[in-house]
Amino acid sequence: MGSPAGGLQLPGALAAGPSCHWLRAATWHSSWSPASQVGGCRMEPGRRSRLALLTDLYQFTMAYGYWRAGRHWEPAEFELSFRRCPFQGGFALGAGLGECLAFLRGFSLSQADIEYVRSALPSGTDEAFFDYLRTVDASEVTVAAVPEGSVVFPRVPLLQVKGPLLVVQLLESTLLCLVNYASLVATNAARFRLLAGPDKKLMEMGLRRAQGPDGALSASKYSYVGGFDFTSNVLAGQLYGIPVRGTVAHSYVVSFSALAEVQPRMLAPRAGGEPVDFPCLATTWLERACQLLRVPREGVNEGELAAFVSYAITFPCSFQGLVDTYSVMRSGVPNFCGVALALAQLGYRAIGVRLDSGDLARQAAAIRRMLRACSVQFQLPWFEAVPIAVSNDVSEQSLEAFGTEGSDIDMIGIGTHLVTCPQQPSLGCIYKLVQVNGRPRMKLTEEEEKMTLPGCKAAYRLRDAAGRPFMDLLALADESPPRAGQELEAWVLGASPEALRVIPAAVETLHRTYFKDGQVCEPLPSLPEVRSHAAASLRSLGPAHKRLREPEPYQVAMTEKLHVLLQTLRQASQ
Amino acid sequence: MGSPAGGLQLPGALAAGPSCHWLRAATWHSSWSPASQVGGCRMEPGRRSRLALLTDLYQFTMAYGYWRAGRHWEPAEFELSFRRCPFQGGFALGAGLGECLAFLRGFSLSQADIEYVRSALPSGTDEAFFDYLRTVDASEVTVAAVPEGSVVFPRVPLLQVKGPLLVVQLLESTLLCLVNYASLVATNAARFRLLAGPDKKLMEMGLRRAQGPDGALSASKYSYVGGFDFTSNVLAGQLYGIPVRGTVAHSYVVSFSALAEVQPRMLAPRAGGEPVDFPCLATTWLERACQLLRVPREGVNEGELAAFVSYAITFPCSFQGLVDTYSVMRSGVPNFCGVALALAQLGYRAIGVRLDSGDLARQAAAIRRMLRACSVQFQLPWFEAVPIAVSNDVSEQSLEAFGTEGSDIDMIGIGTHLVTCPQQPSLGCIYKLVQVNGRPRMKLTEEEEKMTLPGCKAAYRLRDAAGRPFMDLLALADESPPRAGQELEAWVLGASPEALRVIPAAVETLHRTYFKDGQVCEPLPSLPEVRSHAAASLRSLGPAHKRLREPEPYQVAMTEKLHVLLQTLRQASQ
Repeated sequence: MGSPAGGLQLPGALAAGPSCHWLRAATWHSSWSPASQVGGCRMEPGRRSRLALLTDLYQFTMAYGYWRAGRHWEPAEFELSFRRCPFQGGFALGAGLGECLAFLRGFSLSQADIEYVRSALPSGTDEAFFDYLRTVDASEVTVAAVPEGSVVFPRVPLLQVKGPLLVVQLLESTLLCLVNYASLVATNAARFRLLAGPDKKLMEMGLRRAQGPDGALSASKYSYVGGFDFTSNVLAGQLYGIPVRGTVAHSYVVSFSALAEVQPRMLAPRAGGEPVDFPCLATTWLERACQLLRVPREGVNEGELAAFVSYAITFPCSFQGLVDTYSVMRSGVPNFCGVALALAQLGYRAIGVRLDSGDLARQAAAIRRMLRACSVQFQLPWFEAVPIAVSNDVSEQSLEAFGTEGSDIDMIGIGTHLVTCPQQPSLGCIYKLVQVNGRPRMKLTEEEEKMTLPGCKAAYRLRDAAGRPFMDLLALADESPPRAGQELEAWVLGASPEALRVIPAAVETLHRTYFKDGQVCEPLPSLPEVRSHAAASLRSLGPAHKRLREPEPYQVAMTEKLHVLLQTLRQASQ
Repeated sequence: MGSPAGGLQLPGALAAGPSCHWLRAATWHSSWSPASQVGGCRMEPGRRSRLALLTDLYQFTMAYGYWRAGRHWEPAEFELSFRRCPFQGGFALGAGLGECLAFLRGFSLSQADIEYVRSALPSGTDEAFFDYLRTVDASEVTVAAVPEGSVVFPRVPLLQVKGPLLVVQLLESTLLCLVNYASLVATNAARFRLLAGPDKKLMEMGLRRAQGPDGALSASKYSYVGGFDFTSNVLAGQLYGIPVRGTVAHSYVVSFSALAEVQPRMLAPRAGGEPVDFPCLATTWLERACQLLRVPREGVNEGELAAFVSYAITFPCSFQGLVDTYSVMRSGVPNFCGVALALAQLGYRAIGVRLDSGDLARQAAAIRRMLRACSVQFQLPWFEAVPIAVSNDVSEQSLEAFGTEGSDIDMIGIGTHLVTCPQQPSLGCIYKLVQVNGRPRMKLTEEEEKMTLPGCKAAYRLRDAAGRPFMDLLALADESPPRAGQELEAWVLGASPEALRVIPAAVETLHRTYFKDGQVCEPLPSLPEVRSHAAASLRSLGPAHKRLREPEPYQVAMTEKLHVLLQTLRQASQ
């Protein structure tokens, strides 16, 4: 075992023990200096990603098998795709490509990696194999892919990975790991966006619920791709430039018990001038608010008031009240109104109310009525529109249940149900050999759904006259592409055995070559560009395919040549 | 945005762009050299974990609020606990402590971190606050915790975190992130172990389905803690010393189409001697097996035979056959028998059959009958006991459904349902302020379940005369501990308002102080030690609490003093 720790003398050894992989992993990446990252993208010795071992052992046993049989150099192609749309929906967003390319650039095995692989393989494994592993990298690998953020469908490859059999086999598990969750959470985010409509602000706040630190960062990044506006995760903000948001937690509110604790107490008007004793001013306004809202003054929690007052003095231009630490209607909202109205007298506008428990839509509607009452009574038109932010285990179901009362909600924070994707926590992508040494290959299992489509392929998205995609067509790579305006025959997967005749108004080639000769060979979009592409790609998709429940399945079809090849291989195996 | 990428001239910029956080994160950890990790554990400048920003923005806005109010130094205590056992079960395994301690050791903010925080806070934030942030670390933090791997219950703190209010507030999100998933997946693994019984081998194989690369590593590590035997993840093996396993995938099998492709062809007997043409020998044995098993020879797939033969030549001492690429019974098993019997003639024993689709238990039983037939016919007693390994989306439900036929299964590989915990993908731990500046605090929300227990506490596990734990008792820290053999009054949480009178036969203090004065102050167990502790802790728990469905809830109770404090604070707020 990897733990040299033991006695009290060496407690520091914990960091070298088994207890902190995300700290240790660090050291293996230390050769990736920022300088090397912005330089040219050829792989140089010493610029290794050190993630070559983030794979399943059987990739190495197979690699040895290929090598022993002298087949390691055979040209092979794998396709990465998924079998079913996640969440019983009608689409997915493809994501993770950028990370796959970064992994490929740095792909190689260090001496320590190779020593470990040696220890894990049966003794007697030929020493020359490990010498060979030292030379392995992605310099002979070619990757074509659907642009990141695109709407994608079952069976259409997200990635096509070509290269020497041994190398492209070794890449499998890592590529799957990088695409699976990225695409899943981007799709999940897109569904929340579809449900919430274009106007509500959506914030990802799943750090504490995510499956590990990196799961959290991936969630922030790909939720943004899928249409979220903000994240609570500061590191994700720093890393990816995603706008971050956040104000206070309940612990801040409960940490106060009385107004006497508030200091400093003075706050100057926004336009300048003599500072005033803000706790006094807020207390005065609280009395008025209580009277107006018919809330007993004595039921208002003073610690909560102190917390709000203190926060308002600290952030007078961005005061938000978290109103559910005690009673929402009898304490939280009156306290918010008192403090926000006091701020208003000094020329500051509160930025919001936040609610983290209970029936969110119903309470939001009630809060809106109270804000409106203050707005009218104190002649502050903007006050009724103070944004209401909600969170509390929000799921697709709770969003659907918001109904008309939900229209009073302006911003929704989503954690667990966004980042862990409980409706379907894995996309289930597969990576299947489709050709080796010039021969098309397929898995002819007894489970129909696990069968794969053979051969090197091209994929085309066919659009109707309105520009809407209606079919993705898979063809053999050496076929001439379909042409706009020309009729073609298509065998729709999972549909009747008869061909369909269709005439596309426009034809788009789905894959681009992103990686060749060890280099990234296509300009990569920035994260906001990926996000915009995802939004545009979704916009063009027909509403029937975007329905979250029982969507109309999008057609994925084969050309006649591919259909014939499939039939031939099936028959040959019987 | 953080992406300087753009044109074809600089494709290498992708690695600095938003697309590869787990590679970039690397550079921020580069100051953690292995040398620094095994050295003393005092935090030195330059030995920063760079994960201080893996937190929610509101921690920083609250920190500024505390600092502005001059409250940042106030002594505070937070408790990390969960509200309900995961998976509707009766227990959880506490895990993640080692990673929390490593995080604490390195906790501090770099200049770049502080600059980023400045950019995320409202303009006008006092410059002196950022100077203060430069001095922040965990040197005044004290952490007491339940030993990693212990059986734990709702409301009993896994961690008690004491220190200056501002600092312990900043730690919240990261600690939650580190404990939540670790404990969840360890518990999930323990449930699979309980279901499978002590004898079957369990292998974690969730890398490709996990929520990101680090999610995968955490899954491997904490599944092992929860009672799994192996992982497929090579990096997890290298990092944590977990035994790794793996043989071949379907792609290996489909990459072969004919025996002529097999090379080399010669294999020497185990005891030495003249090498024989192994494809010929295997073909001979295949004929015999087909005859015995009454399988038509012409239905046996030759590519599959070639793959098995090639693999057997490569790994004669560890041949395993993946039998479901084509027909399991008409091709896979006969091919396995042919190759394994040929190996047997040369003195080698095959190590197993693997099955990755269909009805696993039924097929395993059928395969066992075929192995038995060969065993009898060819007088190889060990042949009937060749281990059968299965995988295919195995869940708790499918394990339960195995029934008696499942007894023919020796090893189970579990991926998605283990690592993504689809039954409940987040443990939902909370981190709540229980005391500040000497005053007990609690969250008195309208949702009863979200209420917290106030005050600095101690926790005791009470055992009966048979050594079985029957109650965890929460007391105020300054109370004298309960004594074995002495009657005490206990108010059980969530039960009747009357006190229960109990006499523990033994009393165990649950928490130990692991971190003090910036140092880890308790020897940390190795991963196998944590795993053994988890097994022992589970063994001691009564069977009624270990039932996977409708378990008997374990009692968590308060002493009279804590009960009175809770009532007093509740009444004071009303």
